[in-house]
Amino acid sequence: MQGQSQQQAYDRGITIFSPDGRLYQVEYAREAVSRGTASVGVRTPDGVVLGAVRRVRSELMERSSVEKLHKADDHIGIASAGHVADARQLIDFARRRAQTERLRYDEPIPIETLTKSVTDHIQQFTQTGGARPFGVALLVGGVIDGQPRLFETDPSGTPYEWQATAVGGDREAIQEVLEEGYRDDLDLEAGVDLALRGLSSTNEDLEAQGVEIATIDTESESFETLDTATIESHLAEIGGESDE
Amino acid sequence: MQGQSQQQAYDRGITIFSPDGRLYQVEYAREAVSRGTASVGVRTPDGVVLGAVRRVRSELMERSSVEKLHKADDHIGIASAGHVADARQLIDFARRRAQTERLRYDEPIPIETLTKSVTDHIQQFTQTGGARPFGVALLVGGVIDGQPRLFETDPSGTPYEWQATAVGGDREAIQEVLEEGYRDDLDLEAGVDLALRGLSSTNEDLEAQGVEIATIDTESESFETLDTATIESHLAEIGGESDE
Amino acid sequence: MQGQSQQQAYDRGITIFSPDGRLYQVEYAREAVSRGTASVGVRTPDGVVLGAVRRVRSELMERSSVEKLHKADDHIGIASAGHVADARQLIDFARRRAQTERLRYDEPIPIETLTKSVTDHIQQFTQTGGARPFGVALLVGGVIDGQPRLFETDPSGTPYEWQATAVGGDREAIQEVLEEGYRDDLDLEAGVDLALRGLSSTNEDLEAQGVEIATIDTESESFETLDTATIESHLAEIGGESDE
Amino acid sequence: MQGQSQQQAYDRGITIFSPDGRLYQVEYAREAVSRGTASVGVRTPDGVVLGAVRRVRSELMERSSVEKLHKADDHIGIASAGHVADARQLIDFARRRAQTERLRYDEPIPIETLTKSVTDHIQQFTQTGGARPFGVALLVGGVIDGQPRLFETDPSGTPYEWQATAVGGDREAIQEVLEEGYRDDLDLEAGVDLALRGLSSTNEDLEAQGVEIATIDTESESFETLDTATIESHLAEIGGESDE
Amino acid sequence: MQGQSQQQAYDRGITIFSPDGRLYQVEYAREAVSRGTASVGVRTPDGVVLGAVRRVRSELMERSSVEKLHKADDHIGIASAGHVADARQLIDFARRRAQTERLRYDEPIPIETLTKSVTDHIQQFTQTGGARPFGVALLVGGVIDGQPRLFETDPSGTPYEWQATAVGGDREAIQEVLEEGYRDDLDLEAGVDLALRGLSSTNEDLEAQGVEIATIDTESESFETLDTATIESHLAEIGGESDE
Amino acid sequence: MQGQSQQQAYDRGITIFSPDGRLYQVEYAREAVSRGTASVGVRTPDGVVLGAVRRVRSELMERSSVEKLHKADDHIGIASAGHVADARQLIDFARRRAQTERLRYDEPIPIETLTKSVTDHIQQFTQTGGARPFGVALLVGGVIDGQPRLFETDPSGTPYEWQATAVGGDREAIQEVLEEGYRDDLDLEAGVDLALRGLSSTNEDLEAQGVEIATIDTESESFETLDTATIESHLAEIGGESDE
Amino acid sequence: MQGQSQQQAYDRGITIFSPDGRLYQVEYAREAVSRGTASVGVRTPDGVVLGAVRRVRSELMERSSVEKLHKADDHIGIASAGHVADARQLIDFARRRAQTERLRYDEPIPIETLTKSVTDHIQQFTQTGGARPFGVALLVGGVIDGQPRLFETDPSGTPYEWQATAVGGDREAIQEVLEEGYRDDLDLEAGVDLALRGLSSTNEDLEAQGVEIATIDTESESFETLDTATIESHLAEIGGESDE
Repeated sequence: MQGQSQQQAYDRGITIFSPDGRLYQVEYAREAVSRGTASVGVRTPDGVVLGAVRRVRSELMERSSVEKLHKADDHIGIASAGHVADARQLIDFARRRAQTERLRYDEPIPIETLTKSVTDHIQQFTQTGGARPFGVALLVGGVIDGQPRLFETDPSGTPYEWQATAVGGDREAIQEVLEEGYRDDLDLEAGVDLALRGLSSTNEDLEAQGVEIATIDTESESFETLDTATIESHLAEIGGESDE
Repeated sequence: MQGQSQQQAYDRGITIFSPDGRLYQVEYAREAVSRGTASVGVRTPDGVVLGAVRRVRSELMERSSVEKLHKADDHIGIASAGHVADARQLIDFARRRAQTERLRYDEPIPIETLTKSVTDHIQQFTQTGGARPFGVALLVGGVIDGQPRLFETDPSGTPYEWQATAVGGDREAIQEVLEEGYRDDLDLEAGVDLALRGLSSTNEDLEAQGVEIATIDTESESFETLDTATIESHLAEIGGESDE
Repeated sequence: MQGQSQQQAYDRGITIFSPDGRLYQVEYAREAVSRGTASVGVRTPDGVVLGAVRRVRSELMERSSVEKLHKADDHIGIASAGHVADARQLIDFARRRAQTERLRYDEPIPIETLTKSVTDHIQQFTQTGGARPFGVALLVGGVIDGQPRLFETDPSGTPYEWQATAVGGDREAIQEVLEEGYRDDLDLEAGVDLALRGLSSTNEDLEAQGVEIATIDTESESFETLDTATIESHLAEIGGESDE
Repeated sequence: MQGQSQQQAYDRGITIFSPDGRLYQVEYAREAVSRGTASVGVRTPDGVVLGAVRRVRSELMERSSVEKLHKADDHIGIASAGHVADARQLIDFARRRAQTERLRYDEPIPIETLTKSVTDHIQQFTQTGGARPFGVALLVGGVIDGQPRLFETDPSGTPYEWQATAVGGDREAIQEVLEEGYRDDLDLEAGVDLALRGLSSTNEDLEAQGVEIATIDTESESFETLDTATIESHLAEIGGESDE
Repeated sequence: MQGQSQQQAYDRGITIFSPDGRLYQVEYAREAVSRGTASVGVRTPDGVVLGAVRRVRSELMERSSVEKLHKADDHIGIASAGHVADARQLIDFARRRAQTERLRYDEPIPIETLTKSVTDHIQQFTQTGGARPFGVALLVGGVIDGQPRLFETDPSGTPYEWQATAVGGDREAIQEVLEEGYRDDLDLEAGVDLALRGLSSTNEDLEAQGVEIATIDTESESFETLDTATIESHLAEIGGESDE
Repeated sequence: MQGQSQQQAYDRGITIFSPDGRLYQVEYAREAVSRGTASVGVRTPDGVVLGAVRRVRSELMERSSVEKLHKADDHIGIASAGHVADARQLIDFARRRAQTERLRYDEPIPIETLTKSVTDHIQQFTQTGGARPFGVALLVGGVIDGQPRLFETDPSGTPYEWQATAVGGDREAIQEVLEEGYRDDLDLEAGVDLALRGLSSTNEDLEAQGVEIATIDTESESFETLDTATIESHLAEIGGESDE
Repeated sequence: MQGQSQQQAYDRGITIFSPDGRLYQVEYAREAVSRGTASVGVRTPDGVVLGAVRRVRSELMERSSVEKLHKADDHIGIASAGHVADARQLIDFARRRAQTERLRYDEPIPIETLTKSVTDHIQQFTQTGGARPFGVALLVGGVIDGQPRLFETDPSGTPYEWQATAVGGDREAIQEVLEEGYRDDLDLEAGVDLALRGLSSTNEDLEAQGVEIATIDTESESFETLDTATIESHLAEIGGESDE
C-alpha cells in the first residue's frame, strides 16, 4: 500500500513540498547522483586535485568518452557524478558563464562566483514547474589569485565549500578515507595520492586507465590532466603504502 | 488510509486552500523551515544582533560556506533558516531591491520597505500556479535614521516585527529563552549574549566556530560580523553566568 | 471515506462548481477568513469607525506589525480579516487604484467605486485558472462628499454595504452585539464604543494595546487612528456600562 | 461510492461532456443559479417589467447593496439570479457592449443583439479550458423602436425569449403563477402586479423594501425603478386580490 | 465499478483515443446531439427543404427564440440539433465564412465548400487540447448554379452528403420514414410533406407552430421560411394521407 | 480490474511510452484505422492503382460524399482508412505541400518527398503534448519521371514503400490476396483487377458503386478515376475468374 | 496491484525521477529501442563500418523503405534502432546541424561535435515538460582529418564512443560477438565481416537483401553503401568461416 501511494506521489510533474517539508523530486535526484560512480576533490595549499572513476560497459567502449572530468575554464575544472546527460548541460552552462565573464571584464571568473551561478541555475529547476531537477552533483575546483578553492553543488542548488570531499556512489565511505588522510599542509602530489586512496577504497583493483585525475596548481592556475603512466605510479605508491 | 490520501493531497502542483482554510504547501514549507538550524535576532536600543548556527556534515567542510547570515546592504543583515537554495534566491532579491533604492533615490532602503518587498515576492509564489512556495524564513535586521528594526518573513509572505525572536528548528524553545532574558534597555553586548543564550539553549556544547554573529549598531548603521575569538569570549561569559 | 474524497476534491488547482452549485475553493477561502481575528466597522452620521483585534504570538512581537487596519487614501480606511499576506496584496491594489483616480481626475475616489474595483479583482481569481482565490475579507470605510459609507468584500468578490458589521472569527456573535446596540443617530464616539463592544464580546479581557481603532469623520473626511490612551478610556467606559 | 466518483468527476478544471452528453460544469452552474433568490420579467404591450427579491443577512445590511436589478443602457434593464460576483462581470460586459454600439453607430443597441453578445460570451467559458462557466442567469428586458422584448440567458449560453418568466430559486413555482396570470393585453401596471404575485408566491410576507421593480415602458423607452411606496401599494393591491 | 471507471475516463480534458480506437469526447458529443429535438433535410430536384421541431418549456416562451433553422447566406440554410449555444458558434462561423467568400470573390459560396470549412473547424476542436468538441450536428442545405445540395456535419468533423436525412433525437426512426417516402423526382411541395412526415413520426400531435420549415428552391436559389398557415395545410395534407 | 487501470491509462492527454516501450495513443490510433473500411494500392510498371470501399449508412446517403480517394496533385493520389475528419486534415496538408513545391520550384513534388513531409507532420502529433495522434493511415501513390511509387503512412509517422498493400479493416486478409496475386509485370488493367480482388475478398457482394478506383498511369503521370461501368466490368471479370 | 500502480505511474506526461533516482520515461524509451531490429558499428584504422538489419512485414514491402542507415553528411553515416519516426526527426536534426557547420565555417563537422549536438537535443526532451523522450538509439560513424570515430547516442542523451558496438534488439548477444572478434588492426573488409557476424548471430539465415552495410573509409572520408552482391559475398565468406 505504501509502495503504491509513494508511486503516485512522485509521478506528478513538479517539485513540491511533502508534509514533512522535503522536496521529493530533489531527494530522488540525489538518488540519481548516488547511482553514479564517485568523483573526489582535494584542496591543498599547492592546488586542487579532482579525480573520477570511469566505468565502461564493455572492453570496446572508449573510456575517454565516459566524461566525468571537465575543464570549465583555464583555471577551473569540474568533476561530476550522476546523470551524465544532465551533467553535460550544467558543464555547458558553466563554460558559457565563464566565457561571458572573460568577455565582459577581461578577467577569469572567481571559483565561488561560477559555483553560485550554477547553483542558482539548479535551484530554478526545483521551484518553477514544467521541468525536473538536475540529477547530478558537481565538484568545482580551481585557483584564482593564488587561492585554491573547492566547491560542491547538489541537486537542490546548495553550494558547499570543502577541503576534500566526494560525490556519487559510496560517498560516505570515501569521505571517511579523506577525513582520515587529510592534512592542511598536503602538497599536490600527496593530494593526488589522497584522492586516489579515496576512489580505490570503494573500487577494488582500481586501474590507472579506469580513473581520471586533473589538477589546478596554485602557481600556474591552470587545469592539467595526469597521463595514465603518472596515475599508475601514484596507484603503485599508495598500494605500497597500504601494504606497510 | 489517512496517510495515503494526505500523500495524494500534497502531490499536486499549486497552492490551494484545504477545507479548513489553510494552504497546505505553505504549511509544508514551514516544515522545511523547522528542519533547518535556528537563527535568532535581538533588537536593542544600541543596534540589532543576528545570530545563526552553522552545522557541518564533515570536519572537511568549510564552515564559512554554510551560509546563514548575509549582508543585504551596508545597514541591513539577513539571517535565514530552512531550504538553503531558496534562501539564496530571496537574499539576491533583497540585495537587488536595496541597490535599486540606492540607484533611484540615492538613499539607503528602510528596513520595513525592504522586508515588505520580500514578503510580497514570497506571497506571489503562494497564489499563482506553476511554482512552489519558498521553504525559508528570514530575519531582516538593520538600522536606519538611528532606528534599529528587526523583522521576520515567513513562507506565507507575512511580515512580523520583533524585539527578539528565532526562526528554524526549536524555535519555540529558543523564544522562551529570549522572552525570559529580554529587557528594553539591553546594550548591544548584552544583546549578543542573549542571542547566544538562545542558540545554545537547544545546541549543547555550542562552539564559537559553529555560530555566526553579526551586528548593525545604531551609531555606525553598518553591518559587522564578530570574529570567532569575540564569540568565544561571549560564550565563556554566558557559560559562566549559567553556572551561577 | 468521505474525508478522503473531500481531500481529493479540493486538491486540484482551479475554482470550479460542485454538484450543488457552490465553488469549493471560495468556501475554503471563507474558512481562511474565519480563522483570522475579527475586524468591525460601524457607520454613523458623523463618520465611519473601523476596529480590529491584533493578536501577538509572543510578548516580544511588535503589535504594530500585525497589520489589520490600513489607510487606503486620505478619506478611506480598510480593515481586514484572514490571510495576512493576501490582505496586503488587496490593500496595495486598492491604494494604486485610489492613486490612479487622483492622477486621472484629480479627485478622491468614491468609496463604492473603490470597493467594486477590488471585488472585480477578487472575482477574477475565482473564475480563471492558474491561481487560487484571496483568503481575506475587507471592510472598506470612508467619507466622500459628506457621505459616510461602509462596504464589505468577501472571497467570492461580492460587495455588500453595511451600517455596521464584522468580518473574521466569531463574526456572527459580534454581529448580534452590533445589531442590538446600533442606532441610526449614533455619534462617532458612540460608534467607537459599539465597535469596541463588538470586539470585546468575543475577546475576553480585551486590552487597549490589543486593538486598533480608526475613524474617518464626516467633517474632515480624513482617516485618523486612535491612540492607546483614547482606546483605553473607551474600553473603561463600555466596561462601566456593562457593569450596569 | 457513487458520491465519491461523482466528486472526482466534477473536480477537474474544464467543461467536458459526460457519457450521456451533458456538460457537468454547466449543470452545476445551473445549481448555482437555483441557490439564488428569484428574479422575474413580464412583457406587456406597454413595456417590460423586471422584478427581484433582495434578501439581507442582517438588519444592518444595506438592502440597496444587494444588486439584483441593473440598468444596462437607457432602454435596457437586466435582472440576475445566482452568483453575485459573476453577475457583475456579465453586467459590465453588457454595459460596455451597449456603449460600443452607441459609439460606433450612434444608436441604442437592439435588445436581442445585446442578449446574444452576452450569451456568446457565456458560451466561450463553457467550451475553452482554463476557466469555469458563469454561475448566473440573466433576464434582459428593454424597448427599442416601440417593441418591448424580454430575454433570458442561462449558464450554457443559450438565449430564450419570453412573455413572462422567472430565474433563480423556485423558478418552476413562480412560472406557474405567471402562466396562470399572464394575458397578452396586460397594461404595465398589471404587469407589475403579476411580477409581484410571482415573487410573493414563494416568499411569504414579501415586504416592499425586500423587492426591487423596474420598468422600461414602450413610450419612453427608458429604464425606471419604482420607489418603495409604489411597490407597497402594488403589494397591497395583490394582497387584496388574493383575499378575494 | 464500471460506472466509476467510466466516470473517471471522461472527466479529463482532452479528446484522446480509447483502446478500441474511438474518441470518447466525440462519442459523448454525439449523445448531446441525440438529446436535442430532431431536424430534417430533404433534397429534391426543385430545391432543398429544411425542417426542425421547436419545443418550448412553457406556453410563455417565445417559440421563435428556440433557434433551430438559420439562414447562413441568401442561398444556404442550416438546421441544427443538439447543444444550442454550440450551434450558435458554428452558425456564426458559417456566416462569416460565407461573407468572406462574397467579399473576396464577389460570388456566393458553394454549399460543399462551406460545409467543409465548418467540418474542418469542428475537427480542430477534437484534436488539439484545451477545448471540448462541439455538441451539435448541422444540416447544411442550399442551391448554387441550379444544383440543390444537402450536407450533414457531425461532432467528429466529418461531412456527409444526403438526399434526405435527419439529425438529433430519434434520428434512426425518422430516417426510416424518409427512406420509405423518398423518390428522386419529388417536387418541392412533396419534399416539404416528406420532411413533415419525418418529424411528425416521432412527435405525436405535431402542431404547425411547433415546427419550422425553410426551403431553398432551385429557381430562386433563395432561402425562404414557410409561414404557420402553410405548414398547417401541409400537416393537414399528410394527416389526411396517413388516414388512408 | 485490468480494464479499469487500462481505462485510467489511456485517458490522459499526451502520448508517452509504456513500460514495454510502446506508445499507447499511437496503438489506439491504429485501432481507429482498423475500424475504417479498407483501401488498397497496387504498383505496376504501367502505373499505380488506388482502390477504396465506400460504405453508406443509408440508401439516401450520397456515396460520393464518403471520401476515401483524393487527388493530392495532378500526379499523386491518396487513399485513406480510419478517422475521416483526420484524413481530411492530412489530405489538406499534402495538397498545400504539393502546391508549395510547384510554386517554389515550378516542378511536381516527388512522391517520396511528399510522403515524408506528411509522416514528419504526423510524428509531431505523437511527441509533443497538447494534441492526439492522427487516427488515419494513408496510401500515397503517384508517378514522377516515369517512376510509379506507392507509399503508406501509419499513425506513428513511419513511411513504408510497397508494391501492393492495404490499410484499414481486414488489412491482413487483403494483404494475403495481394501477395498471392501480385507479379512484377502486371499491366495496369491487371493491377485494377488485383486491387478489386483484394477489396472484394473481405466485402461479400461488392458492387461497383460501393468502390472507388483511381489510377496514375506511367505514361500520362496523371490521376484518373474509373467510372462505375468500368469498375463493374472489372468486377465481372474477376467474378468470372474466381468461378474458374 | 503492482501492475496497476506501475500503469498509473507511467501514464503522466513528463519525465521525472522515481524514488530510486531513475527516469521512467527514459527507461521505457530504452525498451522502445530494444523492440527495434539491431544496428552495429565497427571502427577500424581504415574506416568505420555501419550495418543494420531490415525486416519487412510482407514480401510486397520495399525493403529499401525500411530506413535504418542514413547519410548525415559526405563523411558521416548514422545507423538507428528503435522508433522509426523518431529516428527520422533526429536524422533530420543531424543533417541540418551538419549543413549549418558547412555554411558557417565552410568545413565538415567533426563527428564528436555532431554527436553531442544530437545528445544535447535528446536531453532537452527528458528534462523539460510537454513532450516525451526520443525512443531511438543512434550509431554515428564517420571520418574527419583521417580519424575514424564511432559514437552511440541513447534515449537519455548520453554520448559514448566505441570501437565496435550494437544498438537495438539482442544488443548484448551481438556485443559479445563483437568483443570476441574485434582486433585493433582490422582492415575495412574484416570490419564488414565482423559487423555481419554480429548481425547474423541473432538473425538466423540472414540474407544479403535483408541487411544494409555502409562504410566511411579513412582515405576517401566518404559515405558509401555496399551493394547486395558485395554483402552476399561477405556473408558467404563468414558462413564459410563459421563452418571451419
